[in-house]
Amino acid sequence: MTLQLDPAAQNLLFREARTANAFTDEPVTEEQVQDVYDLVKYAPTAYNQQPLRIVLVRSPEARERLVRHMNEGNRAKTAAAPLVAVLAADNEFHEELPAQFPAFPQAKEVLFGERPAREASAGFNAALQVGYFILGVRAAGLAAGPMTGYDADAVDKEFFPDGDHSVLAVVNIGKPGENAWRERGPRLAYDEVVTTV
Amino acid sequence: MTLQLDPAAQNLLFREARTANAFTDEPVTEEQVQDVYDLVKYAPTAYNQQPLRIVLVRSPEARERLVRHMNEGNRAKTAAAPLVAVLAADNEFHEELPAQFPAFPQAKEVLFGERPAREASAGFNAALQVGYFILGVRAAGLAAGPMTGYDADAVDKEFFPDGDHSVLAVVNIGKPGENAWRERGPRLAYDEVVTTV
Repeated sequence: MTLQLDPAAQNLLFREARTANAFTDEPVTEEQVQDVYDLVKYAPTAYNQQPLRIVLVRSPEARERLVRHMNEGNRAKTAAAPLVAVLAADNEFHEELPAQFPAFPQAKEVLFGERPAREASAGFNAALQVGYFILGVRAAGLAAGPMTGYDADAVDKEFFPDGDHSVLAVVNIGKPGENAWRERGPRLAYDEVVTTV
Repeated sequence: MTLQLDPAAQNLLFREARTANAFTDEPVTEEQVQDVYDLVKYAPTAYNQQPLRIVLVRSPEARERLVRHMNEGNRAKTAAAPLVAVLAADNEFHEELPAQFPAFPQAKEVLFGERPAREASAGFNAALQVGYFILGVRAAGLAAGPMTGYDADAVDKEFFPDGDHSVLAVVNIGKPGENAWRERGPRLAYDEVVTTV
């Protein structure tokens, strides 16, 4: 094994961590979410564009507004999770770009002046950040339950009425409860995924 | 600090790791890439679809075929890196799905029978896996230099003549060399990214 990351960290983030469908009642605090963000914010995005935006759905009223747009199989667990985060791409991320990537302040107009180019870049880079965020939740000793089964247009309208954001995932977060996950699925073998030329 | 992940691992993966633009001559071995894959393969994708495919560009001839499709500013470092990986989404991932997600073998046809639905899902989930892969490279004690500046159509035709894959990123990999990175850019503050409802 050539990895430098120690085995306990490998287990916490990858080998023993699992997608959870049931949680204990233990709350997820604002401090925990801040610590997750202050870790994963350092992972890279193209031109340091950081298009991910996060809505923490905490109030019962907001939870209800979200649950009704989830696919039926996701409703009960989304209603019951200690914390639910809506993760979205900000399709107007270029407004922050001159401050975030001062080496090439013209990127805002030259690369991202047109909305379709912005949406494509925001979608890909925010998806990278969704991956970082899921691992960050695990780094906090919490379990994540990422879901993509919902009415995306309805979630966008409900939580991002500015029309400038695209939901990418909804993530339940908490300590895993009883029967939190099914048996782990198989994984593709190295030779099915990696080729050398 | 509420994180369970130990500070050395936080530094290795997030806080001290940086996008590298220059590398030493030290080779990246097949065993190292296998160990990276055997770690990051466990991170989640929707319906366990695992659409990421990786081409390791090792031969001088293949390297030349890749370099000529990179944007000019990326050519020299892509030509010089110890290893270059082309990361792509497999838009026909559904063929493996009945074996990879046996709980719902009909998903292959019901959810992913149409190519546009497959492409959207493959693009998002493979992007998650690109994020996991970048962190996996760092877990190996190596630096990653992910790039999205290339002629994507030309890379697809050159390395995926079946027409069923979409390149998402090209990643230089190795030990960081002299002046490997520029000053770290700023990051958006918690309150600019996270809202609570």
